[in-house]
Parts: sequence; C-alpha cells; structure tokens
Amino acid sequence: MKIYRYLDGKAPRYGVLREDALVPVRGSVFDDFVLEGAPVPLGQAALLAPAEPTKIVAVGRNYKDHAAELGNPLPEEPLLFLKPSTAVIGPREAIVLPPSSRRVDFEGELAVVIRRRASGLGEDEPVEPYILGYACFNDVTARDLQEKDKQFTRAKSFDTFAAVGPCLAAGLDPGHLEIKTFLNGRLRQSSNTRHLIFPVPVLVRFISNIMTLLPGDIIATGTPAGVGPMEAGDRVEVQVEGIGTLSNDVRRSPK
Amino acid sequence: MKIYRYLDGKAPRYGVLREDALVPVRGSVFDDFVLEGAPVPLGQAALLAPAEPTKIVAVGRNYKDHAAELGNPLPEEPLLFLKPSTAVIGPREAIVLPPSSRRVDFEGELAVVIRRRASGLGEDEPVEPYILGYACFNDVTARDLQEKDKQFTRAKSFDTFAAVGPCLAAGLDPGHLEIKTFLNGRLRQSSNTRHLIFPVPVLVRFISNIMTLLPGDIIATGTPAGVGPMEAGDRVEVQVEGIGTLSNDVRRSPK
Repeated sequence: MKIYRYLDGKAPRYGVLREDALVPVRGSVFDDFVLEGAPVPLGQAALLAPAEPTKIVAVGRNYKDHAAELGNPLPEEPLLFLKPSTAVIGPREAIVLPPSSRRVDFEGELAVVIRRRASGLGEDEPVEPYILGYACFNDVTARDLQEKDKQFTRAKSFDTFAAVGPCLAAGLDPGHLEIKTFLNGRLRQSSNTRHLIFPVPVLVRFISNIMTLLPGDIIATGTPAGVGPMEAGDRVEVQVEGIGTLSNDVRRSPK
Repeated sequence: MKIYRYLDGKAPRYGVLREDALVPVRGSVFDDFVLEGAPVPLGQAALLAPAEPTKIVAVGRNYKDHAAELGNPLPEEPLLFLKPSTAVIGPREAIVLPPSSRRVDFEGELAVVIRRRASGLGEDEPVEPYILGYACFNDVTARDLQEKDKQFTRAKSFDTFAAVGPCLAAGLDPGHLEIKTFLNGRLRQSSNTRHLIFPVPVLVRFISNIMTLLPGDIIATGTPAGVGPMEAGDRVEVQVEGIGTLSNDVRRSPK
C-alpha cells in the first residue's frame, strides 16, 4: 500500500494509491481509517511530504562503504543525530543552498516513518507494529560546515535539508531494497539496504530506548557511498525499490 | 511578567502571576490575550513545562569558563546541537537516569522561548519581538555517552533530559543575569549571562539564518563551569535572576 499526502484545496490530506489515483483517507492514517471520497489522479495531485515528524532521528556511518569513503571507523553502536522538523520538504520542492555554505551534498537514504508511540522496546520485540511505512529521504548536508563544526547539527539543519517522499510504502520488508541516487539523471549512489550496518529493527529498538518515538517521526537510516555536491539548477533523485523516486531541484537562496 | 503553564483540571493552560496567584490567559500566549477567570494560588497549581517546543536548539561551549573546564578551544561561531521535544519535563518532574549511562550531569542554563516565527533575521534586527520570555533550563547530559559518540545527540536526547521552568519571565534583559545551579542545596555552578561568548541576540539571529524558529521553540544558551554528575535521590535546582528556581529530583529508570 502506498500512502501519499497532498493538498485537497487548501487542506493537507492523506490518500492511498489505487491504480493511478489517490483515494482520500478518512480517519487517522496512524490508526483506523477508511478510503472514501473522490479519487484524485496522481499526476494532478499537489504532493506534500508524506510525514509531519516532531523529530527526525538520523544515523551516521551506517553503510560500510560510506564510512570507508569518509575515512571513519565502523561504529559499535548507531551514531545518532537530529534534524529539525522545519527542514522537511516534500517531492518536487526545492532544496535551497544557504549562503553560509560552499558545499552542499546529497545523501540518499531509506526513511522509516513511525506509526505509534514507541518507548523502551525490548530486544526481541517486533518493530512492524510501530512502523507506518517507508520513504525515500535526502539527508542534505553542508559538508564544509559539518567539517568545521564536527557536530553535525548546523550542517544538516537548514530549512529544506530534509527531503522526504514521494509516498510511504506500507508493508515493505526493509531488509533488502535497492537504493540509488541520481544527480541530473546520472547514477551517483547505488547500494542495497542489506548493507546497513544496523538494520531497521535494530535502529527502531535502539532509538526507542533513548527517546520516545511519536507517530509521524522519521528515522533516516544512513547513506551509502557516493555522496557528492549539488549546484543550483541540479535535479537530485533518490530512488528506493518498492517506494518510488523522490525528485527535488536545487536552487540558490534568494538572499 | 511571569507566565506559567499548569493543569486546569485536565487541560493545560497558561496563566500570568498576579501577586501569588495565576490568572488564566484567554487567547494565544504568543499573540493577543486577556487575563480572565478564577485565579489559582501558585502554591496549589500543578505546574507544567512553560513551553511546548517543536525543537530545542542548544549551544555548546558558550561560557569561557566551561569551555576551559572541558579543555575545548573557544568557538568562532555558536556550536549548535538539538534536543528533541520528547525530552522536555517541567518543574518538579523527575529526571530519569537511563540504564545505558554511568554518568549523567546537570548543566544549568538560561533558555529563550520564541514568540513568533523567526527566519533570516538581519544583523541589526532587534530580536525582542521574537522572544516570548526566558526560563531556567537543565541541559541534562550523559557525559560518558557524549565522550563515546563525540556527536552530542544521544547523550542529550533521553526522555526527561530537558528540564524547563518554572515560568517564562517576559520583558527581561538577558544580558546580565546571575545564574546558579545547586545540587542538594550546595552551590555547584555560579556565573552571569554577561559571560556568554555569544549573547542572546547573536544566537537568535544566527540560528534564524539556519533554521526557522517557531513559537514555543527553545534556545538553550549554554552552561557555565561547574557541571557535575547527579545520582538517584539528588535534587537539582537551576536558578536564574529575575526568573526563579527550577527544581527537579533525580531517579533511576524503573527498568
């Protein structure tokens, strides 16, 4: 099942893809809902980010090849950082390059969107009931500021630096999905989620024992090798098997 | 003016202190409001955290003496990290020590609470219109995990690791306030906000040029020298001149 979020007039709404149209969700997408109302053809829908997280918990160095590319040792435990909700953009929205950075990189990732409150999950507890679905994610990073600060926060927190979409794929097995990033149509990252050092269930349990996860919260699971800079005018696409393609154009800040 | 948040029956409500009672706020505390309704004696009010942030932007190494105490050079720019909203607790709520850390420290701070959306503020733009008020803040930190991860996020993101209160003091000049932290009644931190490397207006402008600040968001301005560990059974109090005292007891996680 693919869940989209879109503008119905001026109101944001969730809808489920049936053939090539979105059928509106009535009720809570996190709980019980029915599909009811006039379908909107997917090609005509004004898509929004398919989640409204209170927080984005991201994982650094979670593919062996990316850790090697940055010259970092493999972590013993997941290395976490946070991105703010104000950084979220949806499909087709622009990634805006801030004037304070001279190098802004794409980082294609698989994102997990939380369905229900998760706190203190046990080591053997199944995580599926806590997951609403999976999305493509671009963990946009000002690489120069990351190197300067050492702390990742500033580099990863600019408005528009958390692209998510195009939909949430529910019921997917996240264990072996092809993941690719294209810059202006050229393949730049290509891996598979089976190469994650800490796979999705481990991440959900680990994070839930630090901070309570709330419905809509996002876990960005880390990026494979091949990260690189984007320039104004570029188009970046993150593609994950079973989900689709998240496409965003890049532009310079007007200031 | 001191603004508190408290439980009115089961409903959270803002109230303004008049003599020794809270008079309910009708309308938006971020905008126009009137004071109307039966006053609640402050001593009988079930106090809540006086803000509901979408994010907490915290500043590392922002007092010269604390940077020296940790052996760190002075930063050229504010060093930012984020704490999640799920970490927030209010006055008298317990700070819970997680089983995964063996050393959890207090860090007394001055917090700024945002009144209105702030994005891209100019260098000379006054910040006062964007600030609702000031609170005491305890930036609770698992020091061992901070040292292990280097990234601050895990160490500072556990539930209950962001104590804020007891109220918001509006109309305060944040430039020269005494700030003290007491552990079990003994003075452990003592400084003045005039020793901040980056003062409040600089922080608000700097952060607003990275991420949009929203009403209720918190900026934790950094801690002075004297940080130290807490044990279960301890009481920690952060006191800022013109605001009051934020008191929290410490207990072990039941798990």
